[in-house]
Amino acid sequence: MKRTLICELPSSLNTEVRVCGFVDTIRAMKRNQFVVLRDHTGKVQLYIDAHGKPELASIVGNLTQESTIEAVGTAISNQSVKLGGLEVAVSELKVVSTAKPELPICKDSTLDVRLDWRYLDLRQPEKLLIFKIQTVAEQAMREFWTKNGFLEIHSPKLMATASESGSELFHLPYFGGTAYLSQSPQFYKQMAMNAGFDRVFEIGPVFRANPSFTSRHDTEFTSVDCEISWIDSFADVMAFEENWVNFFMSQIKEKLGSSIEELYGKQVIVPSVPFPRITIKEAKKIIRATGYKSEKDDDLEPEEERLLSGYVKETYDHDWVFVTDYPVTARPFYHMRNPQDQTLTCSFDLLYKGLEVTSGAQREHRYDVLKAQILEKQVSNKDPKLLESLEHYLRFFEYGTVPHGGYGFGLTRMIMKLLDLSNVREVTYLYRGPKRLTP
Amino acid sequence: MKRTLICELPSSLNTEVRVCGFVDTIRAMKRNQFVVLRDHTGKVQLYIDAHGKPELASIVGNLTQESTIEAVGTAISNQSVKLGGLEVAVSELKVVSTAKPELPICKDSTLDVRLDWRYLDLRQPEKLLIFKIQTVAEQAMREFWTKNGFLEIHSPKLMATASESGSELFHLPYFGGTAYLSQSPQFYKQMAMNAGFDRVFEIGPVFRANPSFTSRHDTEFTSVDCEISWIDSFADVMAFEENWVNFFMSQIKEKLGSSIEELYGKQVIVPSVPFPRITIKEAKKIIRATGYKSEKDDDLEPEEERLLSGYVKETYDHDWVFVTDYPVTARPFYHMRNPQDQTLTCSFDLLYKGLEVTSGAQREHRYDVLKAQILEKQVSNKDPKLLESLEHYLRFFEYGTVPHGGYGFGLTRMIMKLLDLSNVREVTYLYRGPKRLTP
Repeated sequence: MKRTLICELPSSLNTEVRVCGFVDTIRAMKRNQFVVLRDHTGKVQLYIDAHGKPELASIVGNLTQESTIEAVGTAISNQSVKLGGLEVAVSELKVVSTAKPELPICKDSTLDVRLDWRYLDLRQPEKLLIFKIQTVAEQAMREFWTKNGFLEIHSPKLMATASESGSELFHLPYFGGTAYLSQSPQFYKQMAMNAGFDRVFEIGPVFRANPSFTSRHDTEFTSVDCEISWIDSFADVMAFEENWVNFFMSQIKEKLGSSIEELYGKQVIVPSVPFPRITIKEAKKIIRATGYKSEKDDDLEPEEERLLSGYVKETYDHDWVFVTDYPVTARPFYHMRNPQDQTLTCSFDLLYKGLEVTSGAQREHRYDVLKAQILEKQVSNKDPKLLESLEHYLRFFEYGTVPHGGYGFGLTRMIMKLLDLSNVREVTYLYRGPKRLTP
Repeated sequence: MKRTLICELPSSLNTEVRVCGFVDTIRAMKRNQFVVLRDHTGKVQLYIDAHGKPELASIVGNLTQESTIEAVGTAISNQSVKLGGLEVAVSELKVVSTAKPELPICKDSTLDVRLDWRYLDLRQPEKLLIFKIQTVAEQAMREFWTKNGFLEIHSPKLMATASESGSELFHLPYFGGTAYLSQSPQFYKQMAMNAGFDRVFEIGPVFRANPSFTSRHDTEFTSVDCEISWIDSFADVMAFEENWVNFFMSQIKEKLGSSIEELYGKQVIVPSVPFPRITIKEAKKIIRATGYKSEKDDDLEPEEERLLSGYVKETYDHDWVFVTDYPVTARPFYHMRNPQDQTLTCSFDLLYKGLEVTSGAQREHRYDVLKAQILEKQVSNKDPKLLESLEHYLRFFEYGTVPHGGYGFGLTRMIMKLLDLSNVREVTYLYRGPKRLTP
């Protein structure tokens, strides 16, 4: 007999149904027993006539919470039932698996204990919703990209040299040599540009041997990246990104807005386009005016990101803001420099509710300029082998190159902020940090 | 001025256009010069009136092949031009970057040299087409999944223990301990089932420290995986997969069939559903009848896969075949066993044109049976710590479990066979093998 999902029951009233799922709660009395069954689409009350069906009653008597069961019965309307005004009057009941009696976690367990038992933690509907949001967001991102002529690539995660900086790099033995784990698909997105792919995207893992335990860092995360050829300036990249954000946010609102409101009490706000744009120089002025003293001249500290987003929300009623024109000292060697002011790069960050979720730029595509910028970095970083380690990368620019730019986007950071959660660990399927490699 | 893509030129005749791309070929004569320009959508002839526009002629005189240029001019119909019966009469020409004069590869360079200069190798339209196919295939796969209620997950690639077998495993120093690189998302797909995700998919990298140099192996590849809850048997998984294959193949044919025919001379065949199904026992009989002597009792050698697919093509005119009911000895411990014959597993492989592209099964979800199968493997593999290393995995089955099954699918293997290419290296963006970590 075909399974009926719990969300389908309202349209199956007065017919025989088969429902499958986890035992959410059990309430057993002498004459009547009630089991709330949960699947990925909702919860439903099962009604068991303990007096009339003693064989079912003995099954329910031995049930434990979170066990899995299949029940066959009739879906009936019952306005006194809180769960959707209906219940299933059970005629057959099968226990598929019996959970051990005492659950190792409860709602107020610490985050660390919940992560130990992540699969049980994820059974809560509001946790499952995070991954429904992720699915809708990613599918919308890809739909927008493919409609705009982007190709999907899968760049290698095993590399012979560092991708961006030598720090925070995992290395491993590799057939008698050493391999490094990719920190970013940056170089390989750029390779695609010079291979004539025109526009590419990639959603995949990146790795950072970052020893810190902040709420926004992990040693492995899903990076969302794209790169665009034949741009005139980094303004083209920002214009693309804001429309892309607008599209996936509107898809999240349309498909899951009511669930997000129900389970998190939050309205999804589809951001209007264009997003506000502020140069880092202006941003620093705005932040100084709040009285905050920064230790950084060329970049924003986390507290400054929050202050700036607060200002933008108040002034423009907007959750998103582009911060532009970062100084050369704050950006990697491959960012193009402003032809009018060589101390600045053609770059931007995107903040969402006080957190950086994107770093983007126009890249330097001219071989000689790029090589000079690498040599400059080699001197300033006192890294005598930098040019050598970038030999293969620099080759991508020898035989015809195209102007290009792109951005990287933090998926878990965005979802964390969308739901106003306080830690990326809550929105990552299985978080990895310096002290966590399990489960 | 807005860029016109080369594929858009037929609808832009007699208007001024701006085209951007790579210099494919140069033919310069005294009075007339011709440059074939290439972008990701096609090629077009640029006509330069060398006599009337000497300043343009001198630019063309210094051009090298594969340099990038922008040209402004008028698109005009010219039936004598082989490339689409049109050309662009150039009025402005700008060199964006000049390629070094002698290209390091040509069409008949060895595969290894071509991989050294992969970005130049990929500039050939038939190489670019591979990634257009990949993009369409993956987007179709995901569309079919999401329509059928699947959620997308990103499982960790850094693990504390081996995912499937201890062999071919990369390991790395991890904050004073050791981490392993994931060989498969298998355990984490199964975790999702017991977390109540119902159905999940993942497309992402996996890593195998495989020292072999065959045409179908690499140390890193893109694995396409899914898992389905509440199945009745592995037949449900096969039924899902064949409809999924049918859908993405029909999308490839619809969107890229004519390009594939033009550049590879191949017809895309959308496979009819259901696919043929043959038990491994029957398959062995069929292969023996050809006179081939196998060294394996419980599995198919590569040559046997080819022979069996040949038989299926001849008998059923079908490129795809499910081989089912593999013996326990050929399958991992987590495969469910046939209740009628405990020497067999509830498993299948899917062959496409003589190559295994999928391995799938119903998984064992009953804690006690699963634990017994691990202990049995521990004895047969003489691996006294197997149960211990699977402690976290086994925990996924302690608090309520659901019947489930799924499959893994080899993306590059499928594309290789679709185009009748001979090596996965040709269809991988950047191949990784024991001797290759660059570019």
